[in-house]
This record gives sequence, C-alpha cells and structure tokens, in this order.
Amino acid sequence: MIKIGIVGGTGYTGVELLRLLAEHPQANVRTITSRKDAGTKVADLFASLRGRYAHAFVEPAAADLASCDVVFFATPHGIAMNQARELLAAGVKIIDLAADFRLKDAVVFEKWYGMPHACPDLLAEAVYGLPEVHREAIRKARIVGNPGCYPTAVQLGFLPLIEAGLVDSAHLIADCKSGVSGAGRKEEMGLLFSEASDNFKAYGVKGHRHHPEIVQGLAAAGKAPVGVVFTPHLTPMIRGIHATLYARLTTPAVDLQALYEQRYANEPFVDVMPPGSTPDTRSVRAANVCRIAVHRPQGGDIALVLAVEDNLVKGAAGQAIQNMNLLFGLPETMGLTGLPVLP
Amino acid sequence: MIKIGIVGGTGYTGVELLRLLAEHPQANVRTITSRKDAGTKVADLFASLRGRYAHAFVEPAAADLASCDVVFFATPHGIAMNQARELLAAGVKIIDLAADFRLKDAVVFEKWYGMPHACPDLLAEAVYGLPEVHREAIRKARIVGNPGCYPTAVQLGFLPLIEAGLVDSAHLIADCKSGVSGAGRKEEMGLLFSEASDNFKAYGVKGHRHHPEIVQGLAAAGKAPVGVVFTPHLTPMIRGIHATLYARLTTPAVDLQALYEQRYANEPFVDVMPPGSTPDTRSVRAANVCRIAVHRPQGGDIALVLAVEDNLVKGAAGQAIQNMNLLFGLPETMGLTGLPVLP
Amino acid sequence: MIKIGIVGGTGYTGVELLRLLAEHPQANVRTITSRKDAGTKVADLFASLRGRYAHAFVEPAAADLASCDVVFFATPHGIAMNQARELLAAGVKIIDLAADFRLKDAVVFEKWYGMPHACPDLLAEAVYGLPEVHREAIRKARIVGNPGCYPTAVQLGFLPLIEAGLVDSAHLIADCKSGVSGAGRKEEMGLLFSEASDNFKAYGVKGHRHHPEIVQGLAAAGKAPVGVVFTPHLTPMIRGIHATLYARLTTPAVDLQALYEQRYANEPFVDVMPPGSTPDTRSVRAANVCRIAVHRPQGGDIALVLAVEDNLVKGAAGQAIQNMNLLFGLPETMGLTGLPVLP
Amino acid sequence: MIKIGIVGGTGYTGVELLRLLAEHPQANVRTITSRKDAGTKVADLFASLRGRYAHAFVEPAAADLASCDVVFFATPHGIAMNQARELLAAGVKIIDLAADFRLKDAVVFEKWYGMPHACPDLLAEAVYGLPEVHREAIRKARIVGNPGCYPTAVQLGFLPLIEAGLVDSAHLIADCKSGVSGAGRKEEMGLLFSEASDNFKAYGVKGHRHHPEIVQGLAAAGKAPVGVVFTPHLTPMIRGIHATLYARLTTPAVDLQALYEQRYANEPFVDVMPPGSTPDTRSVRAANVCRIAVHRPQGGDIALVLAVEDNLVKGAAGQAIQNMNLLFGLPETMGLTGLPVLP
Repeated sequence: MIKIGIVGGTGYTGVELLRLLAEHPQANVRTITSRKDAGTKVADLFASLRGRYAHAFVEPAAADLASCDVVFFATPHGIAMNQARELLAAGVKIIDLAADFRLKDAVVFEKWYGMPHACPDLLAEAVYGLPEVHREAIRKARIVGNPGCYPTAVQLGFLPLIEAGLVDSAHLIADCKSGVSGAGRKEEMGLLFSEASDNFKAYGVKGHRHHPEIVQGLAAAGKAPVGVVFTPHLTPMIRGIHATLYARLTTPAVDLQALYEQRYANEPFVDVMPPGSTPDTRSVRAANVCRIAVHRPQGGDIALVLAVEDNLVKGAAGQAIQNMNLLFGLPETMGLTGLPVLP
Repeated sequence: MIKIGIVGGTGYTGVELLRLLAEHPQANVRTITSRKDAGTKVADLFASLRGRYAHAFVEPAAADLASCDVVFFATPHGIAMNQARELLAAGVKIIDLAADFRLKDAVVFEKWYGMPHACPDLLAEAVYGLPEVHREAIRKARIVGNPGCYPTAVQLGFLPLIEAGLVDSAHLIADCKSGVSGAGRKEEMGLLFSEASDNFKAYGVKGHRHHPEIVQGLAAAGKAPVGVVFTPHLTPMIRGIHATLYARLTTPAVDLQALYEQRYANEPFVDVMPPGSTPDTRSVRAANVCRIAVHRPQGGDIALVLAVEDNLVKGAAGQAIQNMNLLFGLPETMGLTGLPVLP
Repeated sequence: MIKIGIVGGTGYTGVELLRLLAEHPQANVRTITSRKDAGTKVADLFASLRGRYAHAFVEPAAADLASCDVVFFATPHGIAMNQARELLAAGVKIIDLAADFRLKDAVVFEKWYGMPHACPDLLAEAVYGLPEVHREAIRKARIVGNPGCYPTAVQLGFLPLIEAGLVDSAHLIADCKSGVSGAGRKEEMGLLFSEASDNFKAYGVKGHRHHPEIVQGLAAAGKAPVGVVFTPHLTPMIRGIHATLYARLTTPAVDLQALYEQRYANEPFVDVMPPGSTPDTRSVRAANVCRIAVHRPQGGDIALVLAVEDNLVKGAAGQAIQNMNLLFGLPETMGLTGLPVLP
Repeated sequence: MIKIGIVGGTGYTGVELLRLLAEHPQANVRTITSRKDAGTKVADLFASLRGRYAHAFVEPAAADLASCDVVFFATPHGIAMNQARELLAAGVKIIDLAADFRLKDAVVFEKWYGMPHACPDLLAEAVYGLPEVHREAIRKARIVGNPGCYPTAVQLGFLPLIEAGLVDSAHLIADCKSGVSGAGRKEEMGLLFSEASDNFKAYGVKGHRHHPEIVQGLAAAGKAPVGVVFTPHLTPMIRGIHATLYARLTTPAVDLQALYEQRYANEPFVDVMPPGSTPDTRSVRAANVCRIAVHRPQGGDIALVLAVEDNLVKGAAGQAIQNMNLLFGLPETMGLTGLPVLP
C-alpha cells in the first residue's frame, strides 16, 4: 500500500483525488490538510465521502507528510515549491497539481504566476506529468508537475501533427471550452450559478497562464518554436473541456486518421474516435480519458481536431493518479477504470 | 461469473446497468437487446462504453436469453411479463426494472398501466425488490420487481415512521422532485433541453403510476391503509430525486433521529444524516445510496423527512444490481462501491 | 416624470429594477448608489444596460436622494430603516425591497434579522406592499415594505383558502423551490455554479426569515393564528419560484376553482390557470405575474395549490414598480406589460 | 396598424415573434397558423402568452393570409417558397425566417436543403435581410430572406475585416457556439435535456447549411471568393450564440477597434464593445442586439473577433421585426427596445 498525503483537500481537485483514491486498491490516504477547515471532518464538508473517509482535515504544519510515500498538492500555485525540498529530503515523492513544476523556465513562471520560484534548481529535475510524452521519465521522477487541464487536451490534440511536422506551427489556434469547475472552488462573482448558467463567454483573451505551458510542450514536441492563439471560454457545465483545434497543413497529402490512431495506439487513456466523430464532453465525464477526433473540413488544408476530457480527471486528479501509478511501478490503469457517467 | 442478459439496452437504465456491470467482478454480460438499434455496436450509441463493450445490440427474438443466469429488463412496461414464463422455465432469474412485477394486484396494474397483466399468477411469487424491506425474500426469489425511482425514496423516507405507527398515515404528503432522466430516453417535447432547462414544474398531479406502488408498500409496512398526496416535479438536473415528506405525528414524544438511525443501522445503502442536515442530490450522484435527514420544524407536530437518491442508481440500475447480488449470494455491495461524483 | 433614486444598484433586484424602469414611460432614474462600485459606470458592470444608462454608481453619502420623488432600496436588510426618517422629512417616498418594513413587530424583526429596528415607530405607518391585499393603503403610503419573494407566492397561493376560512390553518405546508438568483448576487460557496448546478437541496429548514412574514400575512388574512411549515429548496435555475402548497380542507364541499377565479378576477398580475394545470416557472420568466393552479388530489380533503412567479419580478423589482405606480396614481400596469421570455 | 399573418406559430421563432409583436405599437397579428395544432388556443400551448393572444391556431389552408400586409414564415424550410407567388400577387409582403430566400443560387439551395427551389425566379428579387448590409434594398423589398442565426453573428463579426480587405479571406475560421433553442422545437434525441445538459459538443462538422449562406455574404462583402471553416457547437444554454472568429491579417498595421467602431457607428443593433472586452451571451438575452469585441492576441497577426447575439432575436424573430419596420417605413427600432434579461 502506498502511503499518501494530500495537501489542500478542500478544492475540486482535492475531493476528486479522494473520490478516485477511495477505490484504488493500493492507496492508503494517511493525511489530508486544509488551512481553513482544519479539524473539520472531511465527510462533513463533502457528504459524498461519508462512510469512506474518517479523516479530519489537519493543519498543514501539523501534518505528518514526511512519513508518506507520496504527497499530492491540490493547492493554489506556490505551495508545493516551498515544501518540496524538505519532502524530497525525507524521501517523499511529490505530485503537484498546481503549476509550480510545470514550466521549465523560472523567469516564465514568475512572469505568469507573479511570484519568484522558490526552488528553480528543482525545475530541471521535475518531470512534466503527461504520460503520453514523458512516461519513462515519470517512472524515475521524484517530482511530477501535473499538467494543467487545458494543456492536457490541447497538447494531446496537437501532438501528432506537431511531432510529424505537418502543420504551420506558428499559427496554431486552440479554441477551448471549459466547465466551471475548472476555475476551482472559489467564491468569485463570475462563478456564481446566476452569472455562469445559461451563459457563454470567452475570458483570459489577453493572456492565460496555460498559454506558456502549451507553448512549452508543443515547442518541445516539434523541436521548433510554436505560435498559439489560445482562447478559453467558460461553459455552463460543471465538468468537461472541449478543445477545438485548428492548424494549417503544410503537407496536405497525409492520412490524419491513421496518424492519430498510430500515435495513440498503445495509450490506455487516449481514445481516437472513428472518422467523422464529434466527441461530447459527457462521454468522458468522471473518467480518465481523452477522446480525440480529427477532421479536414471540406477536404481543405486546415486540420480540425476535437479533443474532450474531464478537466478534473484526465485534466487533473485522474492524471495525477496515473502518474502515481507510474512512479510506484503499478499498472498504469490501476484505480482508473471507472466508466464515464452518462447521462 | 454470472451470465447476464439485458433486454432493452438503449434507455438510461440500460446504459447505467452497463456502466455499473462493467466494473462488477462477477458480471459477465452476454447479450444486450434492442429492437430499434439491433446490429449497432453498443459503444457506437454510447461513447462512454467504448473499449469496455464489444457487443452489438441483438434483436430480442434472436437473443439467447435462456442460457443466461439472470435477465434484466430495462424496457418499457409490459415487456417482461410476456417473457417471464419462458425464462423461468429455462431456469433464468428475472429482474424487471419496469413495473410489471411491482404491484401485487393485477387489477391495479391494469388500471394504471392500461394493459391486462400477462401472468397474474406470477405476481404473487414475484418479490418487490426493496432490500431494506424484503431482503430475505429477494435472496430466494425467481422474479424481482425492481422498485420505481420515486417509490424507493418515498418508502425509505416514510418507513420508520409508518412501521412504528407514529403518524397520521391517512394524510401523508410526498412532495418529490426528479431530474429529467427519470422520464427516460424518449423523444418528448417536454423533455427537451429548451423546455425543461431553467424551469420547474409539477406534473402528474391527477395521478402518477408510482402512487399505487407507494401506497402498496407503505400500507404493508404499517399494516393499515394509507393516504398519500404525491406531487412529482420536474427539476432541471439530469439525475437525482429529492423527496420532501410530511407527516403529522400522533405520538409527538419520540426521538426521530434515533428512530431513523436504528431502523437503518445495518443498511449498507441507506445513510441517515446527522441532525439538522439537508442532503443534496449531488451527494448521491452516480452512487447506490439513499441519504435521509429527519426534522421536526419549529418543534411542532409535523415530521419532515428529506430523502435523496440517484434515480438511475438506487432508484433503478444500482438497486437492480443490489438485488442481483442478493439473488446469487454475493456480497450485497459488490460492484456498488463507487463513490458519488461531486462536483 | 417620476424622479427616482436607487440605493444599492449592483444586486440582482437592482439591475432588474433598472431593466424594467428603462422601458417605463414615467420613470426618470436620477441616481444609482453603490458603496463598492462608486465611480464605475453602471453599464460597465452590467453590459445588458449599455446604451440605456449613462449613469455611474454614486457613493451613497454623495447621492442627492432628497430631490427624488421616490427611492427604491435594493440593499441588504438594515439600510433603508436608517435613511427613512430623513427621506420622509424631505418628502420622498420609500419602497424598500429588503425586509426593514415588512414585519409589523420590531421584536420579531430583531429576532430574525439580528439587529434592533432603527425606527420602530415607522413600522405602524409602513404598508406591506402586496397590492392584492393592501392596494388602497399603498396608494396613500409614504413607506412601502416590498414583500419577500417566497412570501409573495405563498400568500397569493393560500389567501383564497385562508380568507374564506376553509382549511386547518394551524397545519399549512409550503414546500417552495427557488431559483438561485433569489439568494442574491453574493460570493458564497453554495451559490457557485459547480455547487448549485445539477443539484437540488432543501435549506433553511430550521427557520427562514420569510417564515414570520408569511405567518404575519396569513394570520391577518384569516384573522386567526396560523401554523406554517415552510421548506425552501434551492433549484438549479436562475429565476423562478414554485410554491407547492398543502392545506387540509375543513369544509370539503367547496368549488376551489371558482373560489380562486373570483378572488383574483380583477387582479392584473395574478393569473388563475384552468382546472388541471401545472404552471411552470418559465411561463412567468422576466414578467410581473403570479400564475396559480388549484387541485384536490384524488378528490380528497387536501387542497393542493401551485403558484409560480419570477422571484426578481413579481417577487421583487416588478412588484416594487407596481407599488410605485400605485403610490403615484399611475395605471398599475404601466411599464410592466413585457411578456414572459419563453423559452 | 400593420396586419400580420404568422405561418407556423408553434416553433421557437414563432413564439418569439408573438412575444415581441405583442408589445409592438403598430403590430396587429391577425392570424397564426399551425398544421399540427390547428384549433388549439395559442395561449394554451404557450402559457407565457396568456391574456395577450386570444387567437387559436388556424389550418394553413384556411388562414386568410391574403388580407395581411405582411406574412412571417416561421416554418421549416420549403414552405414559404410554395406560397410566395400567391401572396405577392395579393400584394402581401413576405418575411421568411427559414432558408427559402437566403441563397441566391437555386443549385446551392437544392444541394444543401435537399429539394428543388419552387420559385428560382424570385430569388433574384428577394433581399437578404441583414439590415447592416442591405438596409436600403430591404426598404423596397417584397420578399425578405431573414438570415440564419449563425450567419448573422459570423457576418457581422467578419464584415469590417472583409469589407476593408485586411485579411486572408481564404482561411477564415468561425468557431461558433449555440444554445439548444437554435435547433428548434423538435422532438429529437440529441436535444433532450438529459443529452444536452452538462455537455458540450461540436456537430455538423462535415457541412452545415449555414456554411453556404456565410460564404455568400462574405464573398459579396469582399468582392472575392472566401474560404471558411465553420464549426458549430451545441452549448448547454437555451438561448445565445457566441461566434469566435479568427482571421490572418494581411495588413497588420491597422487599428481594429477604430475600424469596428466606425463600421457600426450608426447601427442601432450592433454594439462594439470597449477594447479588451469579452461579451457574454446573457448580455443580449431576449434583446435584438449583437455585441462585438475585437482583439489581436499577443499583438500577433491573427485578428480575433467575439460576437454574441440571441439566436431567437437578432438571430431570428427580432431581426425579422427589424426588417418589417424597414419594409413599412417605421422607425427601425420600434418594438425592439426591450432590454436584455440579466441574470
């Protein structure tokens, strides 16, 4: 059994980790921290966990994280990097669901997250937790920077085209739609039901923190700089990301369907849909899978890729557990076989 | 492994059965029928099942149901009763998720369902599949009439009061709210998104088919006639039933909290909430549990009970699997331990 | 033209007042206050008002309210009562959409709202702004306490029965469902889209501030004490209240349909539906109307009343304008003839 | 008063016409037809119209359309073209909300709508009812082909760029999101609440009927062929279209904000938002306005345009009334000044 600590258990990625880990045969959740709700029973805050977690939230300072095998950070940005050195010294592996270990360049991190990086030396060591790209490195990692929700869908969607060098990578367009839970469990006006329901809008058009993460991943995949216009939209649904991706083909005579099927042939959590498909977000609701369809509208020179995932699962907690499985030599799919909830 | 046939696999209770059975360690789904979609791959109709079911829907007449151990009917009313005799003769057990084997009185059945009962003699033998009342009988049954979604919540909510004879059972009020999936996967105007979303309404006020089922169950529990005003409402959510129940106490000096906790102390799928709770439907979303809270507003003589369930799980497919586990001597919770999906 | 001041223009009742007043032929909105957003253009906060309001929000202290004919308070509770005396002295009429002038008993006010009343002497003078009961008094009033959203629907639904003395008024049941906007534009966790969407729950079961208001109104109507169990529920829609009301008939031989039709025959904003109806909340969305249907389930001795309104219109801003029309001798329906938005 | 006939009054554009015309000071609705619901009172089908329309639906054949001044067709495609000649002969003007008179080329019409055009000779005469482009022609028209919902938003969004010849018009991208009412009031599985709610998906990727209409309009505006990738998505809201438009600038040194403000300076129903805006669909809900914001992400060479409208108003019934006002020399904004409903 893997001894697990969870720092920041009151957000949506935290409660999703708890939901999934409760059914994971090798998971032993030892401690769950919360600054705000220390002392409160976890199941009193989230009735969905009643009967499954007897834990109370623990003050972060009081939590015995050093005796864990792995600690998940389901916290705001900036927490994991301040605890990383101490935990590593104690032999604890780290999976950060926030952004502290996603970007390789501390300067870029500081620009987008508004704080200097606390341990820039560890950035080189940290592995970006997208198993479809970094599987072997993740197996040997001590620190995993779990990808953002948008970057997971956008990268999985663009990767086959970029890796094969088939498109004008300077003018990629990622028109993305997210459910409201992607913004977290925060008391913000724009996230109120009466504001976000029966409504649709773009946001972050001037610049979104996931932009440099997408650029970093795609540039590495294509071994060349990329330009991406990334437009996130807030969608009146709880869970789900739908990435609609556009790229100009520079080599039109390619079988896109075969390209995608081959690229993901051995991936347990990427599902390339049959030709002509338009995957819906509910087809992945609550499950650790990204479904992808690729089109060439009117047979023209624009490739259109549709990629869907549950932002809290393949876009966060599920992928984190996938990474945990890799870190500890477990079957990669362990605890992640639950089917999507439809309808 | 239990060999399973599913008749009518294209509705919401059918796809929910498939979702749950895919993770059930003793389930071997052999055949899934559909009149309309015979020949279509199950996973082509429901992308959520991709990679988990290779089956195509089979014509009902062509399906080899006789070699199954159990057949679930996830069909409209009136199908199961016409196939029951033949299946029983072949030694196959039957769990009907429709209404054919819920009511004991064939006259009442005909009145509410508009068709004569095809095998009234089997009604006596059939067991009403509410394990919290009929657990031992279900273990020995050949036919289980799986309860309706509303009747499950209303009965579980009222049972402790009725069994203990504490209330004026002639004037029970069941004000119930259901998600839209409770109406089934049917092309009906009133079920359209543009009709049912951002809207709330009562329906079936003149008489709903679940009324006689509720009355039958509560009368048996109280060993006396009951009168129930049952008002169902259509609520703009996919899943979930919330029953708000009112009963006049005839013996006011009773500890309602203790009464409920004792009644359900050993029930794996009924959760009595702490005093003062108001359970929300999402706390049971996609899980096989009914959560109940009991109140006495302003300390008066009216007992107020709040009961929530997922209409497709504890109100349909989950309860059906719970019954299957009982029928075959498996642990009652097998395959039903998945946690609610929240948010 | 009526010179109008609006104190507290950033909440949902405030923006709804602005929406309706923009099309009112006699309304001249002079000033709109906000503590938090003073200096911000109204149309920058609410894009729906672009091109129609050039106003910026004004500091409450700096607002020239004394030169208005009427001031609407669309504020939290406790604001209007502190400004009332000064405004009245200046000859300004007051319509308070909060609770300061709804309850006649200052002790009850203090118990439920947690603050002593600032001008208990004015409570006797203030008129409860339910035109269907107090029309003539409103015409002559200086202060109108605009009814709460739930109390409007519950009182309009029960009034014919109570006034006629036909029911056991000690055991009234009001099972009410509200859209989320009823809770206001407040950054609260429970009001987030990801918490309130696809979910249904009761709340305030231990006691809701609208309870004493309902009791006061019905007791006055029936000239006798009443007992009400009032259960509000949070419903995943933006606007709308659905009150499902139950009362035990003490005089069963009465034509309920005729009773309701006669009681509201001359009411421009109460619509008694045909027998057998189940009004839906969208049938009143964005319009100043309460639709009511009355039933006697199974011909028994329980009267069932269904009443729907838009909580922001007939339950707040629309009724406030209806009251303004009465205060100033305008046609009662002026500016309130917009039709419900369906779908 | 303008004598009005409405053919096909039971769909969403029909009921929206009725909602808006009820408050139009010059509208006199004489007859409303329906094949399916002839004999039914309009207000019995749509409770929102109670008290405002005494009409019953009339059999199309029995309707006295010839005595009307104008007939609106709120029907499926293919109806208006079969009645046009007769109505024109009687001196009746026609506004078709379906597609019969949108496309200039009868061959293109037949290809996309699967039926030969009944009066190809009238196509040349018919005016495409986008007042921002064809205002003067509409004033003199006998037949107006009211634009589709998507084409209205996409054209208004792209027009300034195309007219000015600033972009690579061979590679336009229109990523569009529509509320479910855009699909009409039809009993289709995919439009059910339980299918479309809490879900997001692309559709019509292989080809959507609005594609040729968009291409026709933009090619005319730019006086050159255009290429458009048009990806519609189904969004879980009732009303609203959000068009996210991408075009590669060929002349980067242009002030896009000024371009858009000048282009629409005198348009009563197009609102160019301030720089940096992200308009939300609710800011136009139920109102006849298209709000547009223009961006240049990261100062690059891609222009990003965000355009929102209510698909049933500026995208259908509201624009149709705007066209009626033009046809009859009324102020263009008459009856269309109602504010958006927010929240």
